[in-house]
Amino acid sequence: MPRINFQQQLVALKDKLLAMAALSQQSLEFSLEAYLTNDEGLCNHVREVEAAINAAETSVDEMAHDLLAKEQPMAIDLRFILSVIKINGDLERIGDQAANIAQRAAAMANYPQISLPVDIRTMGAKVGVMIRRAVQALLEADAKLAESVLAMDEEIDEMNRAVQAELVAVMQQHPLVAEQSLNAIIISRNLERAADHATNIAEDVIFWVRGSDVRHQVSLTHPE
Amino acid sequence: MPRINFQQQLVALKDKLLAMAALSQQSLEFSLEAYLTNDEGLCNHVREVEAAINAAETSVDEMAHDLLAKEQPMAIDLRFILSVIKINGDLERIGDQAANIAQRAAAMANYPQISLPVDIRTMGAKVGVMIRRAVQALLEADAKLAESVLAMDEEIDEMNRAVQAELVAVMQQHPLVAEQSLNAIIISRNLERAADHATNIAEDVIFWVRGSDVRHQVSLTHPE
Repeated sequence: MPRINFQQQLVALKDKLLAMAALSQQSLEFSLEAYLTNDEGLCNHVREVEAAINAAETSVDEMAHDLLAKEQPMAIDLRFILSVIKINGDLERIGDQAANIAQRAAAMANYPQISLPVDIRTMGAKVGVMIRRAVQALLEADAKLAESVLAMDEEIDEMNRAVQAELVAVMQQHPLVAEQSLNAIIISRNLERAADHATNIAEDVIFWVRGSDVRHQVSLTHPE
Repeated sequence: MPRINFQQQLVALKDKLLAMAALSQQSLEFSLEAYLTNDEGLCNHVREVEAAINAAETSVDEMAHDLLAKEQPMAIDLRFILSVIKINGDLERIGDQAANIAQRAAAMANYPQISLPVDIRTMGAKVGVMIRRAVQALLEADAKLAESVLAMDEEIDEMNRAVQAELVAVMQQHPLVAEQSLNAIIISRNLERAADHATNIAEDVIFWVRGSDVRHQVSLTHPE
């Protein structure tokens, strides 16, 4: 029963992608925590998670390529596998942003911690929600949930702009904390980029789900 | 002769990708020129090019998806089409970096132009070379040329770090130019990211070419 086997392989591919998503979400959480609590040990841990992310990314890609090569999937399955390949790339890039944040956190460990008038924690939590929703939308083939991610992206863009305006003013008034302020600006940008990748994932889910609707109609006229 | 037709379609796909590459290279050049010469008209032009990039990206993706769905390509052709999809995404992201730079340039138009101790022009020119080489490597299936792109990436990372260190010092000594300094830091980071995308493209070319070598050996034992 090769087709049943193929469906099982698609489920396995989805599971692999979920493991990848878990790693990249965790990496973002850890890196922010490392920055917010000045925890160098956690920075090192993010580097380990990054290696695991790279391995997971390769594993998803190889399985997807194998399925394309050996099973020659049609329509909905093809679209799903192509979405998985793209989503995998976005998850890896979220991991890159996390690695950048951890690098910043490590570089800052020697500077005195100061309190800046920006709320990176809340911003990070919102980006975490975006990633979680995008992945959940994939799991449940839920285009509406995916659309809610697109709406959140604008909110994050706005927060990022506010962080930057606020911290430029801080730098001008207190040049001695320019380094820490710049750091927070760049971490805010890293978060904004992670949000962009969550948005890309949500868009891919919408592409996949809408495709599956179209294909449903087609298969009514061409039952297999 | 459906297979000959398929080969023609692969050539057409490559041509489409080259048009996409030209747009994204141009967009990066224009945006830097807009920043360096404080040219608002050029900023607007970058926005028009961005719309063209988005259209070109969709066109490449659709053709690639169609080929996968209808032709069910094997081995080398499959690998090529998958590389095209990934490279297309990286070219689009280079366009995003260009759009960011143009946005920065437009925001800066009202500030007095000052001379900063960093060489964004040289950095931009090098990134331009990386993109050009990565695309040329794709055209000529030249893994060695692609490898030279990877080496340049480290140089750009180093330049980006130097720009940042230099400009943090400027901000500390001259708080009134914090805005312009931050701007240059962010543009330097945009260039560094564009270089990362050129590196991704080069890696995809290596993946594709090495794949084709392996497949060559296989086809000696399994002639079609």
